Amino acid sequence: MPAMDFWCELASTYTYLTASRIDALAVRANIEVRWRPFSLGPIFAAAGWQTSPFNVYAEKGRYMWRDVEREAERIGLPFRKPSEFPRNSVPASKVAMLGVVRGWGPRFIQRTMRAEFAEDRDIGRTEVLDEILGELNLDGPAVRDEATSAEHNGALRRSTEEATRLGVFGAPTFMVGEEMFWGNDRLAHALEWAMRARRSSSAA
Amino acid sequence: MPAMDFWCELASTYTYLTASRIDALAVRANIEVRWRPFSLGPIFAAAGWQTSPFNVYAEKGRYMWRDVEREAERIGLPFRKPSEFPRNSVPASKVAMLGVVRGWGPRFIQRTMRAEFAEDRDIGRTEVLDEILGELNLDGPAVRDEATSAEHNGALRRSTEEATRLGVFGAPTFMVGEEMFWGNDRLAHALEWAMRARRSSSAA
Repeated sequence: MPAMDFWCELASTYTYLTASRIDALAVRANIEVRWRPFSLGPIFAAAGWQTSPFNVYAEKGRYMWRDVEREAERIGLPFRKPSEFPRNSVPASKVAMLGVVRGWGPRFIQRTMRAEFAEDRDIGRTEVLDEILGELNLDGPAVRDEATSAEHNGALRRSTEEATRLGVFGAPTFMVGEEMFWGNDRLAHALEWAMRARRSSSAA
Repeated sequence: MPAMDFWCELASTYTYLTASRIDALAVRANIEVRWRPFSLGPIFAAAGWQTSPFNVYAEKGRYMWRDVEREAERIGLPFRKPSEFPRNSVPASKVAMLGVVRGWGPRFIQRTMRAEFAEDRDIGRTEVLDEILGELNLDGPAVRDEATSAEHNGALRRSTEEATRLGVFGAPTFMVGEEMFWGNDRLAHALEWAMRARRSSSAA
């Protein structure tokens, strides 16, 4: 099955829109999706931003909140503007990296982003992560310990370094081979590209 | 007929994608489109950029060129990456402002953007503008004189000031009443919004 990398930042509003619907679309297209959590923080810092560009550029930020609200309504996704933005996504993203290895990564990411963007909960807090992990029948403290163990703790940083090498500059980003697609608006195009790549390779 | 403002910057790649297809879509939706040329230069300068953000942020720029190439192919629009970007769009935009008043604005903008983004011509040059105006059966020097006359010369600046007041931060931008939609990707959504506004007002 052809595959697509889904580079996801857990603090990103548009990643929330994608995370809620990518599985259904990918199953229909018969494309394997590899969830790739990473951190935009270091990438934004390299661009000279100490916070999200939606905070740096006020008009763009104001528009983004309205746009995300409208888009969530279009796809029937619950959305409430968080009281703080961006949340610190690093602890949740480290857990998500472990989850991707273990198989519960997508469910954890989807549930975490719903807490963040529909329930205004602070995903940077240990208690919130433990509650979410509990809902997935996982032992929160044990999972967090493992996610920050010598074996796993560097995974998020390595993932972010790989994203940087690929030229990822925002989220969500989809990679189909060398082909990059940026933004929730490009999800369908990226899947089409992967399907086309499959047809070409089976014709060859 | 409900109306939509199409804020267009003649140096903008994504405006090119929109300008080529907005008329056909608007006719089908029965929505009046008001073409509103403006300059992004002063808006970018206020954000701290002395050139296009696609030049300031290299990864974003590299992605944009590939994305525009792909999107142009999707809609069957000729595209060639210009040898210089962005072009100086001010002289052409002043002519476009006059054209909007006279009725040939959209045709002039479409032809100018094709010269810029499919033929790699410098739309900042008088000779290029005169050729394009000639193709539209207009007298280039006379049109340019009028566009920069005391009566018309300030129109582009006033348009840019209005865009700034509205919070426009990029192009293309669509306004349906107070509702803002940014980007070529939002054209269909903006038209849907205008159609919905019509249904609501006829139901009232």
